[in-house]
Amino acid sequence: MSKEQLAVLEDMLRNGPLDIAGDLAQQRELFEAMLAAIPLPGDVTTKATELGGVPVVISETPGIDSGKVVFYLHGGAYVLGSATAALGLASDVARRAGARGVVVDYRLAPEHPFPAAVDDTVAVYKALLDDGVPASKIAFVGESAGGGLTIATLVALKQAGLPQPASAVVFSPWADLSLTGQSLTGKADVDPSLTAEGLRLRAGDYLNGADPHSVLASPIYADLTGLPPLHIQVGSHEVLLDDSLRLAARAAAHDVPVELQVWPYMPHIFQAFSALLDEAGEALQASAAFTTRHWADETQP
Amino acid sequence: MSKEQLAVLEDMLRNGPLDIAGDLAQQRELFEAMLAAIPLPGDVTTKATELGGVPVVISETPGIDSGKVVFYLHGGAYVLGSATAALGLASDVARRAGARGVVVDYRLAPEHPFPAAVDDTVAVYKALLDDGVPASKIAFVGESAGGGLTIATLVALKQAGLPQPASAVVFSPWADLSLTGQSLTGKADVDPSLTAEGLRLRAGDYLNGADPHSVLASPIYADLTGLPPLHIQVGSHEVLLDDSLRLAARAAAHDVPVELQVWPYMPHIFQAFSALLDEAGEALQASAAFTTRHWADETQP
Repeated sequence: MSKEQLAVLEDMLRNGPLDIAGDLAQQRELFEAMLAAIPLPGDVTTKATELGGVPVVISETPGIDSGKVVFYLHGGAYVLGSATAALGLASDVARRAGARGVVVDYRLAPEHPFPAAVDDTVAVYKALLDDGVPASKIAFVGESAGGGLTIATLVALKQAGLPQPASAVVFSPWADLSLTGQSLTGKADVDPSLTAEGLRLRAGDYLNGADPHSVLASPIYADLTGLPPLHIQVGSHEVLLDDSLRLAARAAAHDVPVELQVWPYMPHIFQAFSALLDEAGEALQASAAFTTRHWADETQP
Repeated sequence: MSKEQLAVLEDMLRNGPLDIAGDLAQQRELFEAMLAAIPLPGDVTTKATELGGVPVVISETPGIDSGKVVFYLHGGAYVLGSATAALGLASDVARRAGARGVVVDYRLAPEHPFPAAVDDTVAVYKALLDDGVPASKIAFVGESAGGGLTIATLVALKQAGLPQPASAVVFSPWADLSLTGQSLTGKADVDPSLTAEGLRLRAGDYLNGADPHSVLASPIYADLTGLPPLHIQVGSHEVLLDDSLRLAARAAAHDVPVELQVWPYMPHIFQAFSALLDEAGEALQASAAFTTRHWADETQP
């Protein structure tokens, strides 16, 4: 890492206009505008469609095996973001895994509170299975709230008796909406992006009165037995650090194969900044290697 | 994994004569005899010598870069084991990392209580530096008590103002001699090797009245800031599981680059059973890849 790279990014994150606790309509507009300003690489083709009644965007890049799917869940504290805004990172992740990206436009709070997001991700997954994509050819990837939603979806699939995908990768998952991690205060000074206050506001929007310990909202409280191999990446400069540590611990206690990587000094979802930070590309490569290693036996149905 | 492989190993561990709580003279004899019964591969050459006044065994295999050193610390609850008995695993680890093995015969308790083991490992490390081996060409690897001792040694090096090695790998480290991990009871039924009672007995032998929270005995309580990249492997069927989880969490909180792998259903130091278990070879390969990735820049002194 170059310290200069990190200093530039931290300054951008600290002083930029994005604020998780800000006015939602304004923040949504800003978020979409900022991400829309970054063009996709010329060789990415995208198609907006729907699966199981839920809007999705499919991304493809040259040379992929289109029989394989990266099932991608974007971040945004359950109130921000969209499949389209996530395409830069999502299509990069899918390309590195040699697969199509299926980026889910799950419904957002507060208009559509918990468990709308989980209902949508399960519906899309079911539609993929119904379309003949084997579970063993689907790999989940999610970031931030989408990381928590990734684990929640796996738990929901188990509850519904559906097969688990081949593997799951989560970047800085928000997996405890009851907000009990020590890092919420311990890392407050060094996290340039998120605050406990902002997260508390958005947890309220999403939960809409539901128990913050609901396992489909806060999967660190779930029985994780039977989940597929799990790869967790987090920065050490994150108020959400403990969500990753506790998710890894819970998965370990429940006999889930789990790999955790803590990237020192990195901020929330540093993987999104591969144009600025060497670590972002290295982390994306490590997570893609994990996904690739866990595509199930090619001879399986 | 084949379930049969694991069943055979578990049966062997559960019903074999090794017992961490057993009579020490008898257990030491058994331990050495069992390990001596397994011949080293024919291409391993070993040399017993001393470094810094401490006995060590050097292992070499064809094709290694003898300028690189795997600094290896064996297990045995601080009261059992030896460099010679550890050579099978230690020389395999060093071979996979493309380095010489320097297997440290640190003094054992109860004859030589804490901090004798740490004094010995620091003395050997200093002797390597004095011999002209750059810290950047030394990678630490330790198992069980040797894993805890690995981290304790890194903390002692920091306290002494000595340079840190390139990286450290620990297999199922025993890093909390105050024995407060929940897995000590939570995993008691599924751990075929170790018990809280046995560990408590041996912690007493080693500590000899010292505070079990001493950071050089229980490095999960240490300030880990400044430690080199750390790779932790642990099985989910271990009473010591939580030592690994808490070590990873502590390292993360202190901005240490850390990677944790939890291998489901695996017992304590499953890496030693590569003849029986597919996972053992896979885990050794993953840890060697980590060590190799972190040899410092070849142009450094």
